[in-house]
Amino acid sequence: MVKQVNIGLIGAGRIGRIHARNLKFQVPGAKLVAVADVVIASAKKLAEELEIPICEQDYHRLLEHKEIEAILICSSTDTHAQMIVESAKVGKHVFCEKPIALEIDKIDQALAAVAKAGVKLQVGFNRRFDPSFKKARELVESGRIGTPQLLRISSRDPQPPPLDYVKVSGGLFLDMMIHDFDMARYLLGEEVTELMAAGNCLIDPSIGKCGDIDTAVVILKFESGALGAIDNSRQAIYGYDQRIEVFGSKGSVVVGNKTPTEVMVHSADSIHSDTPLFFFLERYQEAYLAEMHHFVNCLLEGKEPSAGGWDGKISVLMGLAAQESLAKATFIKVKKS
Amino acid sequence: MVKQVNIGLIGAGRIGRIHARNLKFQVPGAKLVAVADVVIASAKKLAEELEIPICEQDYHRLLEHKEIEAILICSSTDTHAQMIVESAKVGKHVFCEKPIALEIDKIDQALAAVAKAGVKLQVGFNRRFDPSFKKARELVESGRIGTPQLLRISSRDPQPPPLDYVKVSGGLFLDMMIHDFDMARYLLGEEVTELMAAGNCLIDPSIGKCGDIDTAVVILKFESGALGAIDNSRQAIYGYDQRIEVFGSKGSVVVGNKTPTEVMVHSADSIHSDTPLFFFLERYQEAYLAEMHHFVNCLLEGKEPSAGGWDGKISVLMGLAAQESLAKATFIKVKKS
Amino acid sequence: MVKQVNIGLIGAGRIGRIHARNLKFQVPGAKLVAVADVVIASAKKLAEELEIPICEQDYHRLLEHKEIEAILICSSTDTHAQMIVESAKVGKHVFCEKPIALEIDKIDQALAAVAKAGVKLQVGFNRRFDPSFKKARELVESGRIGTPQLLRISSRDPQPPPLDYVKVSGGLFLDMMIHDFDMARYLLGEEVTELMAAGNCLIDPSIGKCGDIDTAVVILKFESGALGAIDNSRQAIYGYDQRIEVFGSKGSVVVGNKTPTEVMVHSADSIHSDTPLFFFLERYQEAYLAEMHHFVNCLLEGKEPSAGGWDGKISVLMGLAAQESLAKATFIKVKKS
Amino acid sequence: MVKQVNIGLIGAGRIGRIHARNLKFQVPGAKLVAVADVVIASAKKLAEELEIPICEQDYHRLLEHKEIEAILICSSTDTHAQMIVESAKVGKHVFCEKPIALEIDKIDQALAAVAKAGVKLQVGFNRRFDPSFKKARELVESGRIGTPQLLRISSRDPQPPPLDYVKVSGGLFLDMMIHDFDMARYLLGEEVTELMAAGNCLIDPSIGKCGDIDTAVVILKFESGALGAIDNSRQAIYGYDQRIEVFGSKGSVVVGNKTPTEVMVHSADSIHSDTPLFFFLERYQEAYLAEMHHFVNCLLEGKEPSAGGWDGKISVLMGLAAQESLAKATFIKVKKS
Repeated sequence: MVKQVNIGLIGAGRIGRIHARNLKFQVPGAKLVAVADVVIASAKKLAEELEIPICEQDYHRLLEHKEIEAILICSSTDTHAQMIVESAKVGKHVFCEKPIALEIDKIDQALAAVAKAGVKLQVGFNRRFDPSFKKARELVESGRIGTPQLLRISSRDPQPPPLDYVKVSGGLFLDMMIHDFDMARYLLGEEVTELMAAGNCLIDPSIGKCGDIDTAVVILKFESGALGAIDNSRQAIYGYDQRIEVFGSKGSVVVGNKTPTEVMVHSADSIHSDTPLFFFLERYQEAYLAEMHHFVNCLLEGKEPSAGGWDGKISVLMGLAAQESLAKATFIKVKKS
Repeated sequence: MVKQVNIGLIGAGRIGRIHARNLKFQVPGAKLVAVADVVIASAKKLAEELEIPICEQDYHRLLEHKEIEAILICSSTDTHAQMIVESAKVGKHVFCEKPIALEIDKIDQALAAVAKAGVKLQVGFNRRFDPSFKKARELVESGRIGTPQLLRISSRDPQPPPLDYVKVSGGLFLDMMIHDFDMARYLLGEEVTELMAAGNCLIDPSIGKCGDIDTAVVILKFESGALGAIDNSRQAIYGYDQRIEVFGSKGSVVVGNKTPTEVMVHSADSIHSDTPLFFFLERYQEAYLAEMHHFVNCLLEGKEPSAGGWDGKISVLMGLAAQESLAKATFIKVKKS
Repeated sequence: MVKQVNIGLIGAGRIGRIHARNLKFQVPGAKLVAVADVVIASAKKLAEELEIPICEQDYHRLLEHKEIEAILICSSTDTHAQMIVESAKVGKHVFCEKPIALEIDKIDQALAAVAKAGVKLQVGFNRRFDPSFKKARELVESGRIGTPQLLRISSRDPQPPPLDYVKVSGGLFLDMMIHDFDMARYLLGEEVTELMAAGNCLIDPSIGKCGDIDTAVVILKFESGALGAIDNSRQAIYGYDQRIEVFGSKGSVVVGNKTPTEVMVHSADSIHSDTPLFFFLERYQEAYLAEMHHFVNCLLEGKEPSAGGWDGKISVLMGLAAQESLAKATFIKVKKS
Repeated sequence: MVKQVNIGLIGAGRIGRIHARNLKFQVPGAKLVAVADVVIASAKKLAEELEIPICEQDYHRLLEHKEIEAILICSSTDTHAQMIVESAKVGKHVFCEKPIALEIDKIDQALAAVAKAGVKLQVGFNRRFDPSFKKARELVESGRIGTPQLLRISSRDPQPPPLDYVKVSGGLFLDMMIHDFDMARYLLGEEVTELMAAGNCLIDPSIGKCGDIDTAVVILKFESGALGAIDNSRQAIYGYDQRIEVFGSKGSVVVGNKTPTEVMVHSADSIHSDTPLFFFLERYQEAYLAEMHHFVNCLLEGKEPSAGGWDGKISVLMGLAAQESLAKATFIKVKKS
């Protein structure tokens, strides 16, 4: 058997379980040796199902294990930065779900700890690993569509999250559009200099009462002069809608939705085809697996993960700029450090 | 034979000839009895081809003819408003190509003359009569997609106009996006309160030297709170790209491009299908015919044309607001009168 | 004005009127100077509408007019062959709707008369002039898909013809699939050596009582060894369904249906798109115009029409072979003369 | 932990490994406890990878194990029937890859043994478990498209199998089209009474020298009178092409291909989209998993598998009928027992 990376998982919730199963069954280079969750029952259940030897309530126990080389942080957002700092201090590589934190100083502390320890950090921008978006990036990078001039992203959830989540989410820009900010930078391979946001609460007034919006459009200006427009909705009744278009001087690349089947029904009044896959776990199933492969490969081969600390920070800076733009109704420069 | 409207055409250029042929061959309710063009040779050629009895160099001759009931203004933009005023004064109905004028006071004078004379005025927003966009509007109006929340319009030309035209066009917002401003209002059936523009010269620096842009993104805020995003490019290498999407609480309506054939070629590396129809005359062939039908029907039945004077004015107000927004990098309120 | 061909039309029914309007308004090289119909009222109405100078009940009057250079035969099938013979004898070129006749000896007499007179004959296989099918043929001919190996044609009507028509139609193979037999030969550019038919009456028992079928599948063997399958139905509830696929050693070319709009509606349960154009007159509108252009061009330039006498004959031979195959449940060789 | 079925696998080749991995990682109701392969190294490698306790060269050892409740037969075709007989005799349920055998008497012996022992038998018609085809069947069954009248299946491999395999495969009808015969019966839920085959060797003359064909079209007649057409090719240069269409009195259901991504590239000359997934293992990945779920569920719940012994036999009878039809160029009745 080839070399393996010993991995410890913090957080046995939905996303943690997905990563765990992928590592266990489909990433030969990884060995999932430990799991921790404040809800110990969750940790135990997962440990039993996947035969994970070490199972703890306190994640600090995982950091003490010498044989654990990397930590997967899948706990709640407010714990991410601190866990990165602690993991880096004991020399462990880190995969952390996005966002690193909602406050820039916390992110800076985490990145500083990572830099000082010389460990690897990958942030969970799973969409970069989606086969369609990855191919789109490769096509742009190869020059196939010439110089990019316009970017369009439509990113819409099938239904709003629970209100309890909305309250702590950081708001639509930091919780939802953050993925699109990262996608925008990834697809064009350059930074956004300024952005401008418009937003409204059109779906559920309760979201507005929490101080958040549920519908938004943002204009991006890129370093090269290219322009972008992102739209977000918390509720697309027909399912999880994730489309992008990069338009350039020699053509464009357009990515459509994935559907559960390829069936079309012709009836007297219309042709009916499948709506998009309803949920992000199905839509990005391959992407979640591919990002684990990437993380483990980077560790095995000593390479930097493609979605690193800066990507984790700049996307939050963009989210904060969008919030400020929404408040001031004008373009806001995106900070560069 | 049924009742017919006697029509005189001013301007025997490209668009004038299209309307003339449609009226002659496919609109039984119309009788094209006169044509005028400062380039008399153009007028004569068209008169000969279509057996039009009256042919003049000076359009004033047409206004003197008692039997002419309606005037089609297809001359250059700077002449439109004056011709509307003169036509209205002698009691003739008017179809006028967009824009009515680039200056609001000229438009106001034209609309005042129309109102005073009690004649009908239709402005050439041909896209409203495109079967796909028309069906989209009907679906929105019928409530099929619930309350509209987001609008997306991509509108891209296959190639930039000649520089000589760019210089007198009024700029991208008043020459090109004006169609999309009208489409936005038409599709949602409500007014835009504010808009915000970003633009750049990315295709041809000569366009920039003329003081214009060739690439733009505009955010719209509608009265209802719905948000919109329009993107324009002066050059889509794959052809004339005209797509819209209205997204609402119960679903969305999406309009794609028309292609010359329904052929798909499967080869070893990819499936190849047709790019969109290359030119607006082909793309909107049915729409040009349908708008003539509408105009003639309105005259025969004494109804107001659906694309009237206010539509002609507000779209220019929106274009001016977009220019101001581009200069000031902030949202600009759209004037309401 | 350029050179024009003077044309006389026999038959002012549905298809005759379409050709007449196309010639009048959109084929500059043609001058429609005469119309004849046994129902003189039909002839008169069309003559009035299109300002056709000569209007007759007896088509023989048209044959006597020296200035008429070509005859369009759009009368009922049983009159075609005789009219071709008579037209050829007086040196007039002929466009004849398909089929030339349902009996081979009548066809032979017509073709002999045409050959003896040295006039041109075009048969109304309009689908060859459809932009999509024409492009498919060009792609096959160019070698783009390599050597053709399989052909698939689905050709389905939106609803069965009236029973009165079914009785005199010659049956599904000679009335409906005859178009697909021609399309098969046209697309592959080679002859069919043998064919095998299966058919049934599944839609309307009354059709069966007339001795006809309403659903059929036919296998074709081509000279090159390529194989084909055609299916026909008299009733596709979703509209006029006309699709082909040519599969070869280097790829395939697939032609789909045309739809009235490009609108897609996303609702909670499915994505709805337009069914095909419902009727053949809409589906093949461009093809009907293009075949008139082709006919007139052939006359003006002295070229042979691409859908000629042999094409008219072999398609009937194939229809007869299909009838025999259906009766004998075995492959039947297609006669070659 | 829930109830589990102990399973032994015979044959650790390509398809055996797929089933093994699916059972191990994704079918909680199954426990893969044994593997046997005449190439013991293959068995050992798989046993090590998946931690399978029992590993044998001689499959008879597996039959002796009391705790093994079901056998998966994934060895070469000529061994299937004998293994079914032996497994049934010792009271073990059987999942057997298709075909059961190429000779009807061997199949009969296997089915008799299964019936006598009262064990379950599932045959590996994996396509029945493909989400798209399954949905198509459900739509037909539900009456959504009315009474089925026409069936079309296109089934084309990306490249021919090795000649060594062609020689022992039983020929195209028994090796390849057998899947489509099963799909035809499955989709319409009724039997085929007669069929008619045409075939040719158009891709590789070496296949012809082995006495086989590489291109075929078959017409099916169903009990209800519905008609079907299947085409097969051993080489579709653009990938694995698997499409079906069921056309009925109230509409049709059409299943297209799956593609690796949803990317479309617009360039100056055409729009490029992905060719189908190239290989059957990728195309039917979900189907292979679903058929294992089905098999294990049937055992746990005491239900008959949906693709049973009769399905395994009738598809071979159809293949034999197709061979006879090809030789005699006439319709051949499909035997019913």
